[in-house]
Amino acid sequence: MYATTSLTQFLDLLASSAPEPGGGAAAALVGATGAALVGMVANLTVGKEKFAAVAAEMEEARAQAESLRQKLMAAIDQDSVAFRQVMAAYRLPRETDEQKAARKQAIQAALREATQVPAGVVRLCEEVAVWSRVAADKGNPQVISDAAVAALLADAAAQSAALNVRINLVSLSSPRSADPLWVEIQRRLDGIRAVRDDVLRTAYEKIG
Amino acid sequence: MYATTSLTQFLDLLASSAPEPGGGAAAALVGATGAALVGMVANLTVGKEKFAAVAAEMEEARAQAESLRQKLMAAIDQDSVAFRQVMAAYRLPRETDEQKAARKQAIQAALREATQVPAGVVRLCEEVAVWSRVAADKGNPQVISDAAVAALLADAAAQSAALNVRINLVSLSSPRSADPLWVEIQRRLDGIRAVRDDVLRTAYEKIG
Repeated sequence: MYATTSLTQFLDLLASSAPEPGGGAAAALVGATGAALVGMVANLTVGKEKFAAVAAEMEEARAQAESLRQKLMAAIDQDSVAFRQVMAAYRLPRETDEQKAARKQAIQAALREATQVPAGVVRLCEEVAVWSRVAADKGNPQVISDAAVAALLADAAAQSAALNVRINLVSLSSPRSADPLWVEIQRRLDGIRAVRDDVLRTAYEKIG
Repeated sequence: MYATTSLTQFLDLLASSAPEPGGGAAAALVGATGAALVGMVANLTVGKEKFAAVAAEMEEARAQAESLRQKLMAAIDQDSVAFRQVMAAYRLPRETDEQKAARKQAIQAALREATQVPAGVVRLCEEVAVWSRVAADKGNPQVISDAAVAALLADAAAQSAALNVRINLVSLSSPRSADPLWVEIQRRLDGIRAVRDDVLRTAYEKIG
């Protein structure tokens, strides 16, 4: 859906008062941009004599980056659809007790989906971060800054998606700090942040 | 130029082995996405009775976000053009002494421009961060997560652009840590990081 809109059109929609796309969709786009940069580093490494020793690993990086990018692009639409379903559920009639019960159930189901989509984006961004480290460590050093940008974008996208997990968890119930999904998300964010810092350090060392 | 390409086309080009667009262009796009989200918060605040007290400030935020987005979109193309000019300068003939001198001068001029474009992106992202704080503090709290995503994206985009400043500074000369442009960039990155952390804290407090 959004994959075929132009950069300008997408940002116009994002900036507008339309309820979606919003920050969740932006997070998915930024994660996909990070995945594309891992792919760029792999594409500028594979097939070069000088980097023959890492060719197999960089071909794997390229394939993984491609697959992660497709999934993150799909998440842009999924996030918008999930958001629209939450809005639609809130708009259901609530005159009779039966309607009230049906509405409540629809809202809960829609919020669960709206929580799962950004949670999936966090998980995909963790993989982007892992492959950005491979790209930074073993890819063509001429494009080391692109590997580091991939790590920065994976981290920012994951943190952005996490905010959307949280906001929907809070609407679903009153999540305690021990909520299992939130514990999982925090653990992944910590891991991504560590990779980001590590890749940035490597990049600045190589750049000089 | 790139403003009219689709999201998929742009990421295909980014992931390809074509030398541009690269991480510098991606940084500008992510900064523009942050600016669009500031605009979204402003658009969902202005005109609502409940937020009448902050209407003037949010109208200013909307206008600034729009202007910053246009400038950051323009930087996507400027970064790609600057990169192509560096490549072209390196490809100039270097057989005679005159050619060698002319080539050296062209490379220096192109690298200076390739340093200035991402330095400009850092400055624009600092403004996006400043307005994301206004959006988080005074905007419609229902879209507080979008204000926080704007802060996260401004920070990641600025850090990404800074890598591109550094890589071109290093090619230009051997920058000491006291290089005035690099000192300026580091100062701005510190400021943006502080705003990001502050906005995130505000967002999680409001979300609960």
